Amino acid sequence: MPRTLLVLNGPNLNMLGTREPATYGHETLADIADLCRRTGSALDLEVEFQQTNHEGQLIDWIHQSRGRCAGIVINPGAWTHTSVAIRDALVASELPVIEVHLSNVHKREEFRHHSYVSGVAVAVLAGFGSNGYRMAVEHFAHLLKA
Amino acid sequence: MPRTLLVLNGPNLNMLGTREPATYGHETLADIADLCRRTGSALDLEVEFQQTNHEGQLIDWIHQSRGRCAGIVINPGAWTHTSVAIRDALVASELPVIEVHLSNVHKREEFRHHSYVSGVAVAVLAGFGSNGYRMAVEHFAHLLKA
Amino acid sequence: MPRTLLVLNGPNLNMLGTREPATYGHETLADIADLCRRTGSALDLEVEFQQTNHEGQLIDWIHQSRGRCAGIVINPGAWTHTSVAIRDALVASELPVIEVHLSNVHKREEFRHHSYVSGVAVAVLAGFGSNGYRMAVEHFAHLLKA
Amino acid sequence: MPRTLLVLNGPNLNMLGTREPATYGHETLADIADLCRRTGSALDLEVEFQQTNHEGQLIDWIHQSRGRCAGIVINPGAWTHTSVAIRDALVASELPVIEVHLSNVHKREEFRHHSYVSGVAVAVLAGFGSNGYRMAVEHFAHLLKA
Amino acid sequence: MPRTLLVLNGPNLNMLGTREPATYGHETLADIADLCRRTGSALDLEVEFQQTNHEGQLIDWIHQSRGRCAGIVINPGAWTHTSVAIRDALVASELPVIEVHLSNVHKREEFRHHSYVSGVAVAVLAGFGSNGYRMAVEHFAHLLKA
Amino acid sequence: MPRTLLVLNGPNLNMLGTREPATYGHETLADIADLCRRTGSALDLEVEFQQTNHEGQLIDWIHQSRGRCAGIVINPGAWTHTSVAIRDALVASELPVIEVHLSNVHKREEFRHHSYVSGVAVAVLAGFGSNGYRMAVEHFAHLLKA
Amino acid sequence: MPRTLLVLNGPNLNMLGTREPATYGHETLADIADLCRRTGSALDLEVEFQQTNHEGQLIDWIHQSRGRCAGIVINPGAWTHTSVAIRDALVASELPVIEVHLSNVHKREEFRHHSYVSGVAVAVLAGFGSNGYRMAVEHFAHLLKA
Amino acid sequence: MPRTLLVLNGPNLNMLGTREPATYGHETLADIADLCRRTGSALDLEVEFQQTNHEGQLIDWIHQSRGRCAGIVINPGAWTHTSVAIRDALVASELPVIEVHLSNVHKREEFRHHSYVSGVAVAVLAGFGSNGYRMAVEHFAHLLKA
Amino acid sequence: MPRTLLVLNGPNLNMLGTREPATYGHETLADIADLCRRTGSALDLEVEFQQTNHEGQLIDWIHQSRGRCAGIVINPGAWTHTSVAIRDALVASELPVIEVHLSNVHKREEFRHHSYVSGVAVAVLAGFGSNGYRMAVEHFAHLLKA
Amino acid sequence: MPRTLLVLNGPNLNMLGTREPATYGHETLADIADLCRRTGSALDLEVEFQQTNHEGQLIDWIHQSRGRCAGIVINPGAWTHTSVAIRDALVASELPVIEVHLSNVHKREEFRHHSYVSGVAVAVLAGFGSNGYRMAVEHFAHLLKA
Amino acid sequence: MPRTLLVLNGPNLNMLGTREPATYGHETLADIADLCRRTGSALDLEVEFQQTNHEGQLIDWIHQSRGRCAGIVINPGAWTHTSVAIRDALVASELPVIEVHLSNVHKREEFRHHSYVSGVAVAVLAGFGSNGYRMAVEHFAHLLKA
Amino acid sequence: MPRTLLVLNGPNLNMLGTREPATYGHETLADIADLCRRTGSALDLEVEFQQTNHEGQLIDWIHQSRGRCAGIVINPGAWTHTSVAIRDALVASELPVIEVHLSNVHKREEFRHHSYVSGVAVAVLAGFGSNGYRMAVEHFAHLLKA
Repeated sequence: MPRTLLVLNGPNLNMLGTREPATYGHETLADIADLCRRTGSALDLEVEFQQTNHEGQLIDWIHQSRGRCAGIVINPGAWTHTSVAIRDALVASELPVIEVHLSNVHKREEFRHHSYVSGVAVAVLAGFGSNGYRMAVEHFAHLLKA
Repeated sequence: MPRTLLVLNGPNLNMLGTREPATYGHETLADIADLCRRTGSALDLEVEFQQTNHEGQLIDWIHQSRGRCAGIVINPGAWTHTSVAIRDALVASELPVIEVHLSNVHKREEFRHHSYVSGVAVAVLAGFGSNGYRMAVEHFAHLLKA
Repeated sequence: MPRTLLVLNGPNLNMLGTREPATYGHETLADIADLCRRTGSALDLEVEFQQTNHEGQLIDWIHQSRGRCAGIVINPGAWTHTSVAIRDALVASELPVIEVHLSNVHKREEFRHHSYVSGVAVAVLAGFGSNGYRMAVEHFAHLLKA
Repeated sequence: MPRTLLVLNGPNLNMLGTREPATYGHETLADIADLCRRTGSALDLEVEFQQTNHEGQLIDWIHQSRGRCAGIVINPGAWTHTSVAIRDALVASELPVIEVHLSNVHKREEFRHHSYVSGVAVAVLAGFGSNGYRMAVEHFAHLLKA
Repeated sequence: MPRTLLVLNGPNLNMLGTREPATYGHETLADIADLCRRTGSALDLEVEFQQTNHEGQLIDWIHQSRGRCAGIVINPGAWTHTSVAIRDALVASELPVIEVHLSNVHKREEFRHHSYVSGVAVAVLAGFGSNGYRMAVEHFAHLLKA
Repeated sequence: MPRTLLVLNGPNLNMLGTREPATYGHETLADIADLCRRTGSALDLEVEFQQTNHEGQLIDWIHQSRGRCAGIVINPGAWTHTSVAIRDALVASELPVIEVHLSNVHKREEFRHHSYVSGVAVAVLAGFGSNGYRMAVEHFAHLLKA
Repeated sequence: MPRTLLVLNGPNLNMLGTREPATYGHETLADIADLCRRTGSALDLEVEFQQTNHEGQLIDWIHQSRGRCAGIVINPGAWTHTSVAIRDALVASELPVIEVHLSNVHKREEFRHHSYVSGVAVAVLAGFGSNGYRMAVEHFAHLLKA
Repeated sequence: MPRTLLVLNGPNLNMLGTREPATYGHETLADIADLCRRTGSALDLEVEFQQTNHEGQLIDWIHQSRGRCAGIVINPGAWTHTSVAIRDALVASELPVIEVHLSNVHKREEFRHHSYVSGVAVAVLAGFGSNGYRMAVEHFAHLLKA
Repeated sequence: MPRTLLVLNGPNLNMLGTREPATYGHETLADIADLCRRTGSALDLEVEFQQTNHEGQLIDWIHQSRGRCAGIVINPGAWTHTSVAIRDALVASELPVIEVHLSNVHKREEFRHHSYVSGVAVAVLAGFGSNGYRMAVEHFAHLLKA
Repeated sequence: MPRTLLVLNGPNLNMLGTREPATYGHETLADIADLCRRTGSALDLEVEFQQTNHEGQLIDWIHQSRGRCAGIVINPGAWTHTSVAIRDALVASELPVIEVHLSNVHKREEFRHHSYVSGVAVAVLAGFGSNGYRMAVEHFAHLLKA
Repeated sequence: MPRTLLVLNGPNLNMLGTREPATYGHETLADIADLCRRTGSALDLEVEFQQTNHEGQLIDWIHQSRGRCAGIVINPGAWTHTSVAIRDALVASELPVIEVHLSNVHKREEFRHHSYVSGVAVAVLAGFGSNGYRMAVEHFAHLLKA
Repeated sequence: MPRTLLVLNGPNLNMLGTREPATYGHETLADIADLCRRTGSALDLEVEFQQTNHEGQLIDWIHQSRGRCAGIVINPGAWTHTSVAIRDALVASELPVIEVHLSNVHKREEFRHHSYVSGVAVAVLAGFGSNGYRMAVEHFAHLLKA
């Protein structure tokens, strides 16, 4: 049984900590990667943490996780609302998926209220900041125990 | 600074464990109350746990939490999609709110995809089962430390 | 096998016979209760007949019918169009449900053309006046024979 | 005062008993015709029972009922959702109309939730199987007594 | 150059004079046929006047007019709002078409405000009663002169 | 009984004959005014013919017709689709109204398919070119005889 | 002729003066009750003033006003936008109704722009603060004189 | 501090008392002007009362009120639903605005349920007849005291 | 195992070769019937080829194919967009269905973009001209081999 | 070849410099007129600069430009979103049109995102402040050279 | 005249044969590439077969086909529903395009019912599995002969 | 203060001058790059000019401009209508943005009327051809002076 989690981040999340701190907080994505790895480590889970601004790259990573990982934590960023291709890739991976958003997207523009990913995810969380990533990693540990 | 969390549950959640286990799991609401209280206890938070099928009762409890509690965890059940009154009560409480759903509502009927509560909540999670309650309680501990 | 039918009536139906007779007829709800009980009695079915203006009360009665009744006849009144909570309660009861309306709601305002209950009911009828209640009770006898 | 009821059936209902028994049951349309005639006979009502896959034929039958029948029971089948012409014919007949559907159309595809007939019918029922025809015939007896 | 006009009438117009006189007037369709023939005759136009409740019959008549008639006056009745097939038949006839309605359809139900025929007609009139047919025939004489 | 008809023309119709002849033909508005006056004269009706690009002027003329004219023929031009004020003025005049359009508006942009005037008019015609004005004037003669 | 007015207040209005003063002002509901009673008293009208967070309670009060009161002033709060049951109760009361909102709801969220009550009210006002209650009471005095 | 109120009336309101008394009452606009002036006078407010069927005229009057008046009472009539220009003029005036409608517009056609003015007004009232003007003037006195 | 294919054509397709050649090409329906028969013959499939302008006739043919044919190729023409009855008949046939359109309907009017048939077909093709019929027949040979 | 440009300004633009400077800047319309004239002068173009709050006046000016001007620069203000009449007048002018907005209308209310003018303009710009007028005049010089 | 066909495949199609066999079948994309090449070879057409999960790569390939290929067969996968850029690239190629889908997309989620590609394609097919690719290649041979 | 402008071009713009000259003109993108550089040079602004068909590349370039450039001119091409990711990248750059389109997108398909970029841009222009790029560069010079 694989003990690796793939944590994926979509476009613009590399700018974290430099942009719109009122919305996204001061942490950088490297801080969040550390948090995920430490959380996973304590639960005997290896965390692979990736970010890309290229949809094709994200799809490739998802495909490569098939049969090799235990689950996917994904913050699809703006692609949440526009990418059917990522939705289909997640289905093709045949892995459980948890969708994470740093901010509460339901408080932002109308077009951010619909997610193509939620319909194929096991669970969804939004508005917990970087703590949301930690919660998602811990929930996978919880699921793997069950 | 108050160290009490109010955990509220809307209509039909008293039937938990008896109905539709494929969707909601086998735990009863008493099990979840225990989980919340134990989680809070470990974090030095007192948890008040309530359920009602009467919207007016829920609103009264929310009003009474004002100035007395540190935050509200709410699973509004079916009222999520229909009750502006609960939304307004939560705003009136001037407390941070975390919205919790046992199942991933985004996989269910179209009318369950809109929430009147999300727009006034700090954070939202769905699909984590009873573990979602634990995560919400822990996140309040996290917020209170910050 | 239970031989009890629960006949439920939503808000404002207690005013029957006093309001808008052109739409709803001159009978009172007590007359309809009698009709239901007599119809049931002739078919060896016990009829429990209730009305409330409190949604929470209706949900409580539905919960209590679980495992104890053979089916539910419900005229949800105005809640037909607005209450997801009653829909969920009916599902939680795991009983067959027949939805009844005194008037033909399809001839009234546009917002009365959608029902949250129809999607979880076995059958629906509208416009038969008090006779519709009798028909629903008799159909349960028919179903129980089958 | 006429004592004849016209019971009309729209397209594909001739296939009853051969198709999709999970949805429509095992009875044939001939069985239902018998049921209607026997029910009517017991109530001193003559029942004319017709089916056609030709909209024009249905309209012609409706026109011919004018002044000659006491009412129309109609299961318009798929035309329920698409035929303004049948609606207009029913109005032109100046007869009371009861709309009947074997299955609960509200549980099927979205496009089956709207009926052009309901707005000109006295009453509507759906989901009662063949028993719904019997109920409609009996309700006309009830109306003619009133 | 053909001097024949085809005047077509859709479903239920055979009931004219018997139904809803407040909306459609007291004249029968035979009266209107006479009016059209007399109007045409005075303008050296032969008028063929037809009515049917069968869409297929109407389409056949339209096809047969191709190359043989100078134009089509059509009151499509209820099919105005539902029949793409008649629209396509009119295009296939390659004849100029005038759409006529006895009543002002824009004052009636919302679903009568859209016409599939108007988009392929030369001209449209509604609300002129039987006089509208006369006007349409005269306009064809006017067009043929031009 | 008044024998005066008011024929009103909305914005840009003064440009007739100079603009878009493919859509509107080569006649000028003066030609149409002549046609209306000659048609009226032959039927013992006096025609007042007006055009304006100022909505307020059109409303004033409509008000002044009240009790003094027998009816209004109006080509509201672009205001057809946008002016509730003209609709209300026509109702205030308490006169019968015929709405006229030179072109078949149903073949043009989607926003030209809705008319605020049609719902308060006796009758509507479109696509008959200047002949449509003549037809409208003649129909008033027909109505006044009736 | 009854000289009693029923002034009703929906959910969360008991929090008035404690919540969101920028939107609702600093007065408490008790202040407004006083204002209404003093205004009524000066006009020889007795004012009954009630608030509840329970929809069923509000419906019961409306029913009890039938034949006993001269009219209803209602601030339905959040139920304005969601409760068909209250609309139906107001109709059942057969009393004239004035709908009052403290703030100008048209400046708030889109979902607050529709009211189920307005369609059955005599008159509606919004944005006048507590003065709006006084105005409504005075208007009833005005109506009772007429 | 200016003590002048501008009371503005949009199209067709000059016809008041002559048209549709069932909807608008028997008073003329001159009666309402008197009522406003008398009400203002008693409260030490000068009332300027205007009506026009010309949108440009209304905009000019609004512009001229800037810095010279204390507020605007406006019954925009049909322009309520169609004029962004008046909305913008009211904002440009930088004055508080009260929107008044004689009838309860929410009981009339669907297109009268939206107002471009409400979003920039302090308060809105509808259905109070001429008394609504009086109430608006008095409310300005109330506001000026505050 | 039946080796007969039913190839059905809806309204106006009998006009093929005479109408709108830019859209539909110069071939007649007889040419296409020949093509289908020759294609089928080479693959040991018998082709029955029918066209009708009468929806009822089409439905009857579909019913008669049940248990007797291997599949249905259908070009429903204009009924594609309007006929639920044909959809239901195809389901009742319990045969695999291929939907064919001569032109690419997605390039034509918006109302031609929705098909009631596609949802119950195995496969759909559009824009291949008469070659599309040949492809559909060949695909059935392919399916029967599989 | 005409060397005159008509620069037109719709309602409320006369208030420029006095209203909402955060949105529209501090310049007055006279400043912008100067800027346009100076820009034109340097490019051998005469600029006629007009503003009106009367739609009819704007339409008249557009009509008078026909055959006399080289093009139209128009800031239709609020009429952008509501006036089909101005759109039609611009088409009737048979001149190239550039649509100008001082602010970026796409950042303002939803109803300002649609323009009736854009569909008949050569080019559109928004958000360039008064510089946008200069750019539009220069582009006409560019077009006239081409 | 070029004899090369470009066969393009969008995101996730590289997973074919590994994912959701119930929907897409057991063949791999390499199998389909072989099928296309063999089919082309027999018809004297060279087939270039490509797949990518990177939209930019797909656009580059489309651009490079211009003037070098005879046509494009494209299965855009999820981009069908979201990519205007691919639509524009296809138009820029100035080549005939056939759109292919393995499954019948009309039976899947609502958001898969709209295609940005169909409006610029010559022809479209869906639901034929890998055989659909063969049919598309053969149709190009048919088109090149014509 | 940086004096560098980043001019970005989205998908298919590399094909400029080869495709659809009626819509986009005969210039190549290299011509426009020259024009931008020359225009910038004369205004003491360095212009970086880029095009890509890869969304990720565009996002990377936008990120890299942060703190290094004075502003961004962007023609997002087809991504205008579909990419939330580019919108978010532009916000993350914290630079002023001008959106440029060669053609007047408002005259093209409905789906090109909405832009995700306009809501975060300072200004927008469309339909000015290559001159629009020059205007945007000059406007930045204008802004930098201010």
